[in-house]
Amino acid sequence: MTIRAPRLFQAALWLPCLLILSLFITFTCALSPRKPRLSVLGHNKERNRIYSPSLIASDSNNNDYQTFYYDQTLDHFNYQPVSYTTFQQRYVVNFKHWRGARTGAPIFAYMGEESSLDDDVGTIGFMPENSRRFGALELYIEHRYYGKSIPHGFTGEESLENATIRGYLNSAQAIADYAEIIIYLKKNLSADSSPVIVVGGSYGGMLAAWFRLKYPHIAMGALASSAPILYFDDIVPQNSYDVVVTKDFQDVSRSCYDTVKRSWPEIDRVAAKPNGLSELSKKFKTCKPIKKASELKDYLEYLYSVVAQYDSPPDHPVTTVCKGIDGGANGTDILGRIFSGVIAYYGESRKCYDLNDFFSTDKLSAWDWQTCSELVSPFGRGNETMFQASPFDYNEYKDSCMKKFGVEPRPHWATAYYGGQHIKMILKRFGSNIIFTNGLRDPYSNSGVLENISDTILAVYTKEGSHCLDIVPATADDPKWLTAQRNKTVKVIKWWFHKYYNDLRGFA
Amino acid sequence: MTIRAPRLFQAALWLPCLLILSLFITFTCALSPRKPRLSVLGHNKERNRIYSPSLIASDSNNNDYQTFYYDQTLDHFNYQPVSYTTFQQRYVVNFKHWRGARTGAPIFAYMGEESSLDDDVGTIGFMPENSRRFGALELYIEHRYYGKSIPHGFTGEESLENATIRGYLNSAQAIADYAEIIIYLKKNLSADSSPVIVVGGSYGGMLAAWFRLKYPHIAMGALASSAPILYFDDIVPQNSYDVVVTKDFQDVSRSCYDTVKRSWPEIDRVAAKPNGLSELSKKFKTCKPIKKASELKDYLEYLYSVVAQYDSPPDHPVTTVCKGIDGGANGTDILGRIFSGVIAYYGESRKCYDLNDFFSTDKLSAWDWQTCSELVSPFGRGNETMFQASPFDYNEYKDSCMKKFGVEPRPHWATAYYGGQHIKMILKRFGSNIIFTNGLRDPYSNSGVLENISDTILAVYTKEGSHCLDIVPATADDPKWLTAQRNKTVKVIKWWFHKYYNDLRGFA
Repeated sequence: MTIRAPRLFQAALWLPCLLILSLFITFTCALSPRKPRLSVLGHNKERNRIYSPSLIASDSNNNDYQTFYYDQTLDHFNYQPVSYTTFQQRYVVNFKHWRGARTGAPIFAYMGEESSLDDDVGTIGFMPENSRRFGALELYIEHRYYGKSIPHGFTGEESLENATIRGYLNSAQAIADYAEIIIYLKKNLSADSSPVIVVGGSYGGMLAAWFRLKYPHIAMGALASSAPILYFDDIVPQNSYDVVVTKDFQDVSRSCYDTVKRSWPEIDRVAAKPNGLSELSKKFKTCKPIKKASELKDYLEYLYSVVAQYDSPPDHPVTTVCKGIDGGANGTDILGRIFSGVIAYYGESRKCYDLNDFFSTDKLSAWDWQTCSELVSPFGRGNETMFQASPFDYNEYKDSCMKKFGVEPRPHWATAYYGGQHIKMILKRFGSNIIFTNGLRDPYSNSGVLENISDTILAVYTKEGSHCLDIVPATADDPKWLTAQRNKTVKVIKWWFHKYYNDLRGFA
Repeated sequence: MTIRAPRLFQAALWLPCLLILSLFITFTCALSPRKPRLSVLGHNKERNRIYSPSLIASDSNNNDYQTFYYDQTLDHFNYQPVSYTTFQQRYVVNFKHWRGARTGAPIFAYMGEESSLDDDVGTIGFMPENSRRFGALELYIEHRYYGKSIPHGFTGEESLENATIRGYLNSAQAIADYAEIIIYLKKNLSADSSPVIVVGGSYGGMLAAWFRLKYPHIAMGALASSAPILYFDDIVPQNSYDVVVTKDFQDVSRSCYDTVKRSWPEIDRVAAKPNGLSELSKKFKTCKPIKKASELKDYLEYLYSVVAQYDSPPDHPVTTVCKGIDGGANGTDILGRIFSGVIAYYGESRKCYDLNDFFSTDKLSAWDWQTCSELVSPFGRGNETMFQASPFDYNEYKDSCMKKFGVEPRPHWATAYYGGQHIKMILKRFGSNIIFTNGLRDPYSNSGVLENISDTILAVYTKEGSHCLDIVPATADDPKWLTAQRNKTVKVIKWWFHKYYNDLRGFA
C-alpha cells in the first residue's frame, strides 16, 4: 500500500496557520510495504503551487536555474555492452552566486531524494542562502527513477514493472550517479580545486552522509539533515519513530495523549458492534463507508505521524490537533474528541473525510521498491507508545515484497555497505566533515546521529525542531533556536573551507 | 595477448640461486591488452610445487586450513529475483592460533587477488606469522571468477565469454563479496568485537586499501603491500613502471643498462637484413623461427620486467642477468651479451628458447577483462627508459578491448569510485589505519603510496625491496632492512589493536 497526500496540501491552502506545515511535508511513501509510513523526506509534487510567494527566495527565479541532462551509466557495477547502458539524468545548476573556478569557489551539491527535482529547486533554502554567502555554485541532481530521470524512456511505473530495470534502482547506484555528475561538471568547469559540500534531507541526507563516507575524494563535506541512518538492522529500537510521536503528543498535552491512546480500543469496540462500522463512518463523516476498523486507525496514525514529523513553528500542528482533541468541539466522548482533532488539522469543516486521502493501493512506487530491496527500516512497537501494539514482522514484510516484486528484501545490506552499527566507535577514528542536523520533535531524529562523533563529525540538533526544518528557506519569523542551529552549521562549513583552502595552498 | 609463465618457474627448479625469485614471481597477466605486462601480483599456480619445503611455515599444514564455500550474491548492486543471483565462493579459515571470540581476538583477512586461492594459503607468510603473534584467526577469501569461485558452474573461460556474466567481475563487486563473507563469519563465530585487519598484495593490496576506505565498519585496518593504487587516470606518469626497471638495471651496472638500451635498434637492424630474422633465431636459439622482431623484443622486455619486479635478496636476479650480459660468455657483441643475459636468467643451457614462454594468445583471461573494463593502467614511455619508446595509445587500447569484449574500457571509473588524485590532501583529513608497504626496486612502487599521509595512513618502504617481498614468508636469512620493515608493520598494527581495545572498553 502506498501513500499519497496531495489533498492534505490543498487543504492547507485554505488554512494559513498550517501553511508552514504543508511546506515541509513530504509527498508520502511507504517505508513499510504493509503499514502506511511517512516518507523519509521526499517532496510534495504540489508544493510549488501552495508556496506563498513571499517565502520563495529570490534565487529561485527560474532564469537562474539551468536544467541539463547527463548521459548516465545505468549500472556502475556491471559492465555491459555500451549500447543500452545509459539514461538521461537531470541536474540543475545555478551559477548566479558562483565566484568561479579560478578562485576555487565552492560547490553545494544537493543530493536528490525520492522525488522529482522540481520539488527541490528553489525550495531548499539552505542552497541559495549559502551559495550567496559563500559565492558557491548551486547544483541539484535528481535521483534516478524519479522525476525526469527514468531509464530507457520508460515511465516511472513501467520501469518498476520491469524486473531487470528496477534492479538498478538502489542507493549505491544513486550515489555513484552523483559522483559521475559532480566529476563531469567540475571537469567541464575546470573547477578541480573547488570544494564540494553535499547536502540532503531525510533519505537525501542519508545519501549525503554516505556520499561523504564513500566518495571523500569528491565531496569535502556533507550536511545530512534529518537523516535516519540508524533505522536499519535493529541498530535503534524498532519503536524509535513511534516513541517520538508519542512524546510529542505527551509534551503538548497529557490529556490529548491519553485520549489518543484510549481511542484505539474504543474504535475496535464500536467497530465490533452491530452496525458499528456504520456508526464510525457517521461519526468521522467519511466519504465512503468504513469497511474495517483498520482503515480509520491507519488514517489517524498517519495523521498523528505527519503532524509530529512536521511539528514546526510557528504553527506546531501537534498543538493544533491536540487543541482540537482537548477542546472536543465535536463531542466530548473519546471518538468525538478524536474527530475534533481531525477537523482541527484540516482547519475547515469538510463535507466528508476520505480515509484514503493518504493512501493509494494501485500503483507500484519507486520508493516501494527501495524499501522492499535494501532500505528495510523495521518499524514496530509494543504497548509503550500511544498506538496499539504492532510489532515488526519480517516474514510478513518479506512476503509482501515477494508478492509485489518477486524478490526478498536484503535487510542487512544497508549496514553491510554503509555501516551504522557501533557508528560512534567506527567513525571516531575514521572519516571527517559530516554534520548531522536534527530536530528532536521529528520522529526520525531518534534514528539519526545525535552526538558528536569526533571533532569533525558533528551532531547539531534542536529540541524544538522538526523534519528537515533547518534546510528549508529561512524567514524573518524563524525562532532563535532555529537560526542558531543554521548559524552553527554555517560556522562549521566555514571552518571546513578554511582548512581546505589552507591545505590547498600547502599542497600547491 | 595474455601472458603465462609456468616454464619460468620450472626452470627455476634447476637453479637454486633463482629460487627466491621464483617464489615471489606471479602468474602473469596483461595489464595492457596490447603489451605484455606483469600482473599486479597474482600467483603462480605452480608455486607450491617449487616451494622448498623448508620455506613453508609449519602453519601451512593442510589440516589447519579448512575450506568453506559461501553462497555469494552475484550482483550486490542490482537486485534480481533470487533464484539466479548467487554463486559459491571459496574461503579458507585457520583457527589454530585464534584466541577466540570471547576475548575479541583479531582476524586477519587476506583479500584474494587475480588468482586461485590455492596459491595464497600457506604462502603468504604474513598471515601465519602474525596470526601466531596476535592470537588471530586466519581468513583467506578467493576473488570472484578465479580458482574455484566461478559463478553458475561455468568454467572460468566460459564465464568470460558470456557478456552478461563477465560484467559482474569487477573490484567493487569483489570487495562487497569480502564484506559479506567477513560479516557472515564474524556473526557465525559470535566474534562481533574481533577487529579485522585486511591484507593483500599488489592488486590484492589495492583491494585491501580500498576495502578499508569503503568498509571501515568491517575492517579496522589494512595492510596494502606493493599496491599500485595510483597507476590510474594519469595520476602518476605513464612511464612510472619502466623508469624503475631502467633504474634497477642502471644501479646494478651502467654497462649492462647501456647494452640493453642499445640492443633494441640492433635487433631492428639485424631483423631488417635479408635473412635477418633467421639470424636472430639462430643467435637466440629460439625453438621456432622468429617471425617478427617484436616477438624477441617483447620476450626480452618481459624478462627484464620480471627480474626488476622481483629483484629480491639473496639472489638479485637483475644482478644475475646483468652479470650474464656484462660477462658476454656467449658473444661480446651486443646481441651476444643480451643472449648471455637470457642464459644467466634461466641458469642452464637450454636446447632452445621459446619466445612464447610468457605469452598465450588463445584464451581470454579474467584479468584481461578486468584491465579492459575498469583497471586501465596507462603504461607508456618515451625515450627516457632503457626500452624503445612506446607511448600509451588509448584508442588502440580501446579498440583491442572492443574487439575482445565488445565494451569500451572505463578508464576514469577506478578513480571515480576509489579516488587517487590528490590522495595526500584527501586522506590527510579522511580515513585511517592503512599501511602501504613497498620495495623501491619494484617497478610498481612508483605508483604506490611512498609518503606518510597522516598519523595513521602510513608508507613503510625499503630501498632494497621488491614486489610483495614483505608479505612472503620470513626466513632466517632475511636481510635486516626487510626484517625492520616487517617489524615496523607489526608495531603499527599492535598500536591499532591497542587503540581499538581501549575504544572497545570505553564504548562498552
